[in-house]
Amino acid sequence: MCGIIGVFNHERAAELAALGMFAEQHRGQESCGMAVSDGKVFTLRKKMGLVKQVFPPERLETFKGKIAIGHVRYPTKGSATDYNSQPHTVDSLYGATYALASNGDVVNYFEVKEELEKKGVYFKSQNDGELILKYIIYQIQNEGMGIVDAIKAMMKRVKGAFSTVLATPDKMYMVRDPYAIRPMVWGKTSDGTVVVASESCALDILGVENRLEVPPAGIIQVSERDIKMFDNDPNDYRFFKEDKHCIFELIYFSRPDSFHFNENVYEVRKKIGAELAKKDDIIPDVVVPVPDSSNFMAVGYANEKKCYFSMGLIRNHYVGRTFIKPEQTIRDESVSQKFSTLPNFFTGKKVVLIDDSIVRGTTIKKIVNMIKKAGAAEVHLRIGSPAVKYPCYYGIDTPNQTELIANQKSIEEIRDFAGADSLRYIELDDLLKCVESKDKYCHACFSGNYPIK
Amino acid sequence: MCGIIGVFNHERAAELAALGMFAEQHRGQESCGMAVSDGKVFTLRKKMGLVKQVFPPERLETFKGKIAIGHVRYPTKGSATDYNSQPHTVDSLYGATYALASNGDVVNYFEVKEELEKKGVYFKSQNDGELILKYIIYQIQNEGMGIVDAIKAMMKRVKGAFSTVLATPDKMYMVRDPYAIRPMVWGKTSDGTVVVASESCALDILGVENRLEVPPAGIIQVSERDIKMFDNDPNDYRFFKEDKHCIFELIYFSRPDSFHFNENVYEVRKKIGAELAKKDDIIPDVVVPVPDSSNFMAVGYANEKKCYFSMGLIRNHYVGRTFIKPEQTIRDESVSQKFSTLPNFFTGKKVVLIDDSIVRGTTIKKIVNMIKKAGAAEVHLRIGSPAVKYPCYYGIDTPNQTELIANQKSIEEIRDFAGADSLRYIELDDLLKCVESKDKYCHACFSGNYPIK
Amino acid sequence: MCGIIGVFNHERAAELAALGMFAEQHRGQESCGMAVSDGKVFTLRKKMGLVKQVFPPERLETFKGKIAIGHVRYPTKGSATDYNSQPHTVDSLYGATYALASNGDVVNYFEVKEELEKKGVYFKSQNDGELILKYIIYQIQNEGMGIVDAIKAMMKRVKGAFSTVLATPDKMYMVRDPYAIRPMVWGKTSDGTVVVASESCALDILGVENRLEVPPAGIIQVSERDIKMFDNDPNDYRFFKEDKHCIFELIYFSRPDSFHFNENVYEVRKKIGAELAKKDDIIPDVVVPVPDSSNFMAVGYANEKKCYFSMGLIRNHYVGRTFIKPEQTIRDESVSQKFSTLPNFFTGKKVVLIDDSIVRGTTIKKIVNMIKKAGAAEVHLRIGSPAVKYPCYYGIDTPNQTELIANQKSIEEIRDFAGADSLRYIELDDLLKCVESKDKYCHACFSGNYPIK
Amino acid sequence: MCGIIGVFNHERAAELAALGMFAEQHRGQESCGMAVSDGKVFTLRKKMGLVKQVFPPERLETFKGKIAIGHVRYPTKGSATDYNSQPHTVDSLYGATYALASNGDVVNYFEVKEELEKKGVYFKSQNDGELILKYIIYQIQNEGMGIVDAIKAMMKRVKGAFSTVLATPDKMYMVRDPYAIRPMVWGKTSDGTVVVASESCALDILGVENRLEVPPAGIIQVSERDIKMFDNDPNDYRFFKEDKHCIFELIYFSRPDSFHFNENVYEVRKKIGAELAKKDDIIPDVVVPVPDSSNFMAVGYANEKKCYFSMGLIRNHYVGRTFIKPEQTIRDESVSQKFSTLPNFFTGKKVVLIDDSIVRGTTIKKIVNMIKKAGAAEVHLRIGSPAVKYPCYYGIDTPNQTELIANQKSIEEIRDFAGADSLRYIELDDLLKCVESKDKYCHACFSGNYPIK
Repeated sequence: MCGIIGVFNHERAAELAALGMFAEQHRGQESCGMAVSDGKVFTLRKKMGLVKQVFPPERLETFKGKIAIGHVRYPTKGSATDYNSQPHTVDSLYGATYALASNGDVVNYFEVKEELEKKGVYFKSQNDGELILKYIIYQIQNEGMGIVDAIKAMMKRVKGAFSTVLATPDKMYMVRDPYAIRPMVWGKTSDGTVVVASESCALDILGVENRLEVPPAGIIQVSERDIKMFDNDPNDYRFFKEDKHCIFELIYFSRPDSFHFNENVYEVRKKIGAELAKKDDIIPDVVVPVPDSSNFMAVGYANEKKCYFSMGLIRNHYVGRTFIKPEQTIRDESVSQKFSTLPNFFTGKKVVLIDDSIVRGTTIKKIVNMIKKAGAAEVHLRIGSPAVKYPCYYGIDTPNQTELIANQKSIEEIRDFAGADSLRYIELDDLLKCVESKDKYCHACFSGNYPIK
Repeated sequence: MCGIIGVFNHERAAELAALGMFAEQHRGQESCGMAVSDGKVFTLRKKMGLVKQVFPPERLETFKGKIAIGHVRYPTKGSATDYNSQPHTVDSLYGATYALASNGDVVNYFEVKEELEKKGVYFKSQNDGELILKYIIYQIQNEGMGIVDAIKAMMKRVKGAFSTVLATPDKMYMVRDPYAIRPMVWGKTSDGTVVVASESCALDILGVENRLEVPPAGIIQVSERDIKMFDNDPNDYRFFKEDKHCIFELIYFSRPDSFHFNENVYEVRKKIGAELAKKDDIIPDVVVPVPDSSNFMAVGYANEKKCYFSMGLIRNHYVGRTFIKPEQTIRDESVSQKFSTLPNFFTGKKVVLIDDSIVRGTTIKKIVNMIKKAGAAEVHLRIGSPAVKYPCYYGIDTPNQTELIANQKSIEEIRDFAGADSLRYIELDDLLKCVESKDKYCHACFSGNYPIK
Repeated sequence: MCGIIGVFNHERAAELAALGMFAEQHRGQESCGMAVSDGKVFTLRKKMGLVKQVFPPERLETFKGKIAIGHVRYPTKGSATDYNSQPHTVDSLYGATYALASNGDVVNYFEVKEELEKKGVYFKSQNDGELILKYIIYQIQNEGMGIVDAIKAMMKRVKGAFSTVLATPDKMYMVRDPYAIRPMVWGKTSDGTVVVASESCALDILGVENRLEVPPAGIIQVSERDIKMFDNDPNDYRFFKEDKHCIFELIYFSRPDSFHFNENVYEVRKKIGAELAKKDDIIPDVVVPVPDSSNFMAVGYANEKKCYFSMGLIRNHYVGRTFIKPEQTIRDESVSQKFSTLPNFFTGKKVVLIDDSIVRGTTIKKIVNMIKKAGAAEVHLRIGSPAVKYPCYYGIDTPNQTELIANQKSIEEIRDFAGADSLRYIELDDLLKCVESKDKYCHACFSGNYPIK
Repeated sequence: MCGIIGVFNHERAAELAALGMFAEQHRGQESCGMAVSDGKVFTLRKKMGLVKQVFPPERLETFKGKIAIGHVRYPTKGSATDYNSQPHTVDSLYGATYALASNGDVVNYFEVKEELEKKGVYFKSQNDGELILKYIIYQIQNEGMGIVDAIKAMMKRVKGAFSTVLATPDKMYMVRDPYAIRPMVWGKTSDGTVVVASESCALDILGVENRLEVPPAGIIQVSERDIKMFDNDPNDYRFFKEDKHCIFELIYFSRPDSFHFNENVYEVRKKIGAELAKKDDIIPDVVVPVPDSSNFMAVGYANEKKCYFSMGLIRNHYVGRTFIKPEQTIRDESVSQKFSTLPNFFTGKKVVLIDDSIVRGTTIKKIVNMIKKAGAAEVHLRIGSPAVKYPCYYGIDTPNQTELIANQKSIEEIRDFAGADSLRYIELDDLLKCVESKDKYCHACFSGNYPIK
C-alpha cells in the first residue's frame, strides 16, 4: 500500500504536493519522494523517512516549479532503499523529462521486466512504478508512439493494479488500471489547480471542492490548455474494463474521512458495525474497538444495539521500531507498546471487541489476552471483514497463504487460538450490503475470486 | 509539562527506562535523555528528538547498568538545546556520581539560582532540574550534609512543583514537593525492580502491579537493602504539606489509561462529560469530541444524554512542524493539517462539540468554522474545564495572562469569537464533583487560588 | 587546472583509478569523482573533498567494474558544487552508458552551449566537460553518427584545450585537442591494463612501463580486442594540428617526477635555474627556493654557480582555509601559515631567492618582507618564468589582465613593490633553451601569442 | 609524540591557540582539542581530525575567552577516541575549572592510576594527561594543598616525561619534568600575551619575540598580575633535576625551523650531515635525502663534501589511509604512495642516500629497492642517528625491542636486508659533537642509558 499525489499548475506545487503526501502519510511511512518540473526538467528527491522529515519547509522552498508529483511508500521487507522509493524519472540528453508515481502491484512484473531488459532497458529498482514508466518511454523512444498511445500500449501489456500519475515538464497524466482496483480521485481547486490523489482526504486539505473518480482504464491528460480524457478502443478485448475496487480500502486502509468509490469510508464502517450487531443476540456491557481502524465499526455496532460504546484500549501513536530484544520476558511488548487497557475498566465486564480483520491472528490473540488480564469476564470478538483466506496480488502486502490463519484453521479453532469467548466474522453478503453497488468490488482475499488471473 | 522515569535494580535498566519514557512520550516530544549508573558513575545521553530516535536498540545496549533515570521534555520556546534537556548530572574527580530528572516548575528559580551563583556554583542550563540538583549537591559538599538532609534543605528553600528522581551510583531517591502538584507514582515489579514514573501508564508497560503515590514532601530512598521513607520534621512550618494536585492532569495532560491521585483519568473525563450533559437541555443530533483528549468527555456526555456519539473530526497523528508559510491562503492549514471533518457527516446537524479547555481561543475558532463549513446547522460548544483565567506557575506552559481569552472576554464574547451557537464551560463546583476529594486539587488557573504564593 | 585518469580492463579498476587520482591530487584538491562501468552502465560518485576522503577503501570496494575514469578538480570561485565536479554521465532508458572527464578549458563554451540549449539539451553544470560530452552524445543520438565521428564533429566545433577521457560500458576513448595544450599520457601495465592520465606520475604508481603522449587531435579507442588510433581528415583545415603544450606545466603545475612532452619536469626546472645563474654576476651567500615548486630551479642555480643551496623557507603542508579574520593584525598570517623562515638562518646574508613566477605579486612581497625581517642583508629575486602579462584561456585560472602585476608595472616597479634588492625574470628565449623543441610550446601568457584566437 | 599550546591573556585566545596548534600539526594528526576559559569555566572541544577540520573559523568564534590551551595528538594504536584526546578537564559543582594538556609519557602510569582509583578517582581515558591532572586535583581537593604544592606533589610521585600546561579560569601553569625530556618553550608577544608551546615554530607564528625554555622541574605561574617561577626544594632528592632532552627531537620530530634546547634544529641536522660526510671517502654522483626530515642532513653532507645535492625522491603530501588491500600486487604501494623517484634521474648513478634513522628497517628497504629499480648503480645508505637498539619510554611510540632491527641484526646484516651497497650510521660521539652541550641529552634509544629507571 502506498499513496500518490499530483499537482498541476500552481506556483507552489511542491508545497501543495507535500501537504497532500502528509494527508496520505497513513498509506506509507517508510519513504517518500517528489519530482517537480520547472517547465523543462524534473528535480527529484526521494528518501527514507516521513514527509515532514524529508521535506522540511526550507527544502520545499528550493523546489521551484508548477507541476509536482509525489509518493509515500509503505514498508515492505528487503527493499528499504532510496532507489525503491518513488517517483521514478527517466533522464536523457534533455534532462529528466518524465516522472511517474504509482500505487498498486503489477502481476506480470518479472515477465515484462525481462522482456524490456532483453531490449537493453536498465532498471535501478525492484519497483513496479519504474517498470510502468520504462515500458511507456520505450514505446515512445523506440516505437515512435505518442505518449497517449504508449500509455495504452502499457495498459495492454502490464497486468495488475495501478493508480498512476505520469508527468512531463508541461503535462500531467492520470492513469488507472482497467479494474480500478486501488483508489484514485481528482479535482480542481477554486484557483484552477488540478490535483490527483490516492485519497480524497488529500484533495480536501488542498481545497478541492468536487472530487471525481478516474475511471477504470482511464487516461486523463492535463495541460495548461485543457483536460482531456482518452478512450481506449471499445472493440479491443484487451481493454475490457470493469470496476473492481479493493473493498479492503473501505474496511481498513483508507482514512475514515476519505470518500472512495462513491462511499464515505466512515459510513461504510458504521454500517459494517451495524450489520455485525444485527446478527448478534448478545447483550454486552460495553463495545470496544481495536483503535483506530475499528472505531467507527464499534460506534455503528453500539448505535445499532443501543449499548454502551467506549474506548477501552488506548493506542500509543509514537510507534516505530521495537526496543527490546525478543528474549525480554517482562511483557510481550510489541503489542503492549502499541496498546494499553484502561485501568479498572474491563473488570467483570462482558465485552464485545471489534476488529477490522484477522490476518495472522497473533496480534488479536495478544489483545484478547490483555483484556482478559485486565479483568474482563467475557470477550466476544467481532470482525468487520470476512475471513481472509487468499493472498492479494494487487498492492496489499499480505503474507503467503499458509500464514493466513483463516486458510489453515476453522473459525472455532481461531476463536480458541485467540482465547475469545465467541468469534464472528461478518458474512461477505452482509459486507456487500454496506456498499452501494455490490458488483463493483474485488473481494478475492475473502472469496478467492480474482478479477485478473 | 514533562515526564520522568526511574528504574532501580534491573540488569537492563536502560531498556526499561526507555520503554517507560516511550509510554510517557505524550508528556514531551522535544527532547529526551537518560543517565545510567554502572555502579560507579553515570553515563548520560540527552538529545533533541523522540525516545525511539534518541535511544534505538543498538544504542541502549551500550548503556550497561542497573539504575537508570530518564526524562522526556516538552517543547518550550527559546530553550531547544541538548543542555536544557534532562537528566542533569554533576561531575567531579570521582566521575558523574549524581543524576537528577524533574518535572514541574520552580517558582523562586531566579532567586535561588542567583544565591548559588554568588557562591560560585556554575549552571549549564536555564532548567529548574539543574537548580534542584546543584542546590542539593552544594549542601552535601559545602555544608557537610548527608544526602537526605540536603534534600530536606532543598525542600525548604526551593518553592514550586517538583516531581523529582535523584540517583547516586547505588541509590535512588524519589522526591516530591509539599503540594504534590505534578503526578508521581511508583511501584515494584514481580522481580523486585523499583520503578518511579510521572504516570502509571509507564508503570503498567513495565509490569508494575501495585502503584503508590509518592506523598507530598515525600523522600523515598531505594537501596539494594531496603526502601525507606523519610519524614520531614512535623513541627517545622516550612514542611507544611497538603495535596494540591494539578487538576489539569486529569482534564488534559495525562494519558486516559493513567491512574493519578487515586483517580482513573478516563473516568474523571467521562464524569465531566456527564456533568456537562446534566446542565444541558439541548437535544443534539450528535456529540463530537475534539480528538483525542476530549474523547471520553464526549462519550460521557452522550451516555448521560442517551444521544449519538461519533468522531466527526479526524486527527492526523503525523504532526510536526508546519509546512507552508503564513501567507499561504488556500487553507489555514495549521489546524487543517491536524484535524479534518468527515465528509457528509455534519450536514444539517445540530452538533454538541466537546473540548477539554480553551486557552487562547484561536484553535477552537478554526475548528468551529471548519465544522460550520462542513454543513453543520448548529454548533454548541461545551468545555470540560472552567474558564482559564490565570497562568500556571507550576509546570504548565501557559501564555501570559493577557493572552488568556477568558481573562479578557466574557463568555458571550468568547462564544461570538469562536462562532459557536452556544458556549458553556463546566462550573468549578461541578468539576470538583467528578473527583473524590475536592480539597486535594490545585485549580488556580480557574480560581486564581494559588497554593504557593 | 585539473587531473584526469582512465583505467581499462582491470578487475579492480576503481582502486587503480583512485590511486592514480591520488598521485594527481596536486592538480586539484577541491573535489573529485569517479565513474565505473560494470559492463552495462556506469556508477558515478563525485563530491567535494580529497581523494582519500571521498573514496575510502570500503567505498571503493563497492565500485565493481573493469573500466573506471576519474577526475580531480581545482578550486575555482563560485562553482564549488558536486554538480560542477567531474566525471559527467548521460543517463537514458538504458542507464548511464557514457561517462567523460576532461582537463582544459573550452574557449567558445557559451556559444556552443547556447547552440545545444536551443536544441533542447539540458545542462546540469557550468562545466566544459559536460559540454564536450553532450555535444558528442547529441551527434550520436540526433545525427546518427558513430561515436568516433561524433568525437571528430566535436573537435571541429569546440575550440580550446581538452585532454579528455570518454568511456562507454565496454570501450574507452582518449581525446586531445589539436594543440595538445594540457598534458595527457597513456600506457600499458605488464598485465595489459591500459591507463591514461594527466601526468606520468599517475602511470608510474600504477606500474605502467612505457608512457606515450596522446597526439594532438588524437582519438584513441581502447576495446577488449584492440587499441585503435583514428586519424582526422588531413585535408580538412579544421583539423590543423600542432603541438602547443602549455609551458607552465613544466614551470609550475606538474609534479617534478612527471615526464611531459618528452621532458623530465625536474630537469627543465634545473635548467631554468642554471639559465638564471648564467646571466647573474651576483655572488650570493645562499640560494633559497620558495618551496616546493621552485626547489629544483634553486638546485640548478646553485649547481651552476657553485654556491650554497639551502631551504631557508619551511612550508607547512597542512594548509587549507584561513583561520583568522582579516582584521587580525598580529601577523599577515595567510602567508605566515604557509611559510616560515629558519631561525638565525638569514641573518646578514645576501640571498638569491628563486620563485617560479609572479602573478599578482602580493605573495612574493610578503615572502621578501618575511626574509628581510629575518635579518637578510640583501634579497635578490630571480623568477623562473618570464613576466606573466596575458591571461590564459586554456585551463589555468589566472586573474584578469589588470590584476597581472607585470601587465601594469615595469620590472623596476615590481622590484620596488616586492621590496627586493634586485629582480630578474628569465627571458623567454632562455626559457625555450631549457626545452628540446622550442616551437612546440604555448607561451601566450608571456608573449600574448595565442595558438587559438 | 604530541604538541601542546597555551595562550594567556588575549581577547582571541582560541584563534591564537588554533594557529599555534596548526604550526605544531606535524607533531600529531590524529586528533586535537582545545579548552578555553571565559574567566569562570572552561569550554572544551576535542575530536578526531586535523586542526583546520576540528576548529573552522565559525567554530573558533564561539570560543570566547582570554585563556586557551590546546593539544594535537599523534596516532597511537587502539586509542583513537575523543576521550583519549586532550586537553582534559575536571568538572564540579563550580563548572570545569581546571584544564590540562601534556606531551610526554608517564613511566609509572598504571601504578599511580591504581593508587588513585583505590581512592575513588574516576578515569575517562587511558591517557597520562588525565592522570597528571587528576593527581594534582586530588591533592588540592583532598589534601588541602594549594595548586603549586599540588603540582610539586605530582612531580614527586609521577615519573617520566611531561611538558604540561595546566590552566584555571584565571591562571596558567607551565610544568616540565625534572629531566626536561620533551621540548617546551614560552615567551611573550609585544602586546603582552604569554604563549607556551612544544615548539618555537608555534611561538613564531604568534609573533613571540624572545623564546625561553621552561627549566627542568620548572613550575611557572602566569596570572594577570605577574609571572612567577616556583623553585622546588633544593634539598629534596626527589627534585633532582638535570637537562636530559630527547635528542631525537633534533634528529627527526621537530620542524626544522624550530629552536630547541638552545639549538637551531636545521643547523644540527646540517652538522649531522657534515659529520657523516667527514667519515666518508666515497665520491658520490649525487646526495639524495629521504624527504622531508633528512633534507638538511643531505644538504650538510653535500656542502661538506662539495658534491651534488638533489631531491631524487618526491614525497606526496596528501597522505592518509592506505587504499588498496595487502593482496594487491601491482606495487607495494604503501611506500610508493608516499614516495616516488624522479624519472631518468638515478640511472647509472652512485647515490648517497641520507635517512634520519632506521627503526624496523622495512621502509628503507623499499626505498632502496625503488632507487635501484630506477637504475641507480650504487646506493650508499647514511643514517643521521646511531643504531636504535632500545625502546623509548618517554613519549615516542617505538615498537618493542625485538622489532627494532638494530637490536636483532648486525650493521652488515641490516645493509644486506636493506639491499644497500654500504651502510653507515653516525657514531653517538659524532652526533654529540653536533650539539652544544653533549651532557644535556637523553640518548637512551641508542645507548640504553635511561635517565629514569
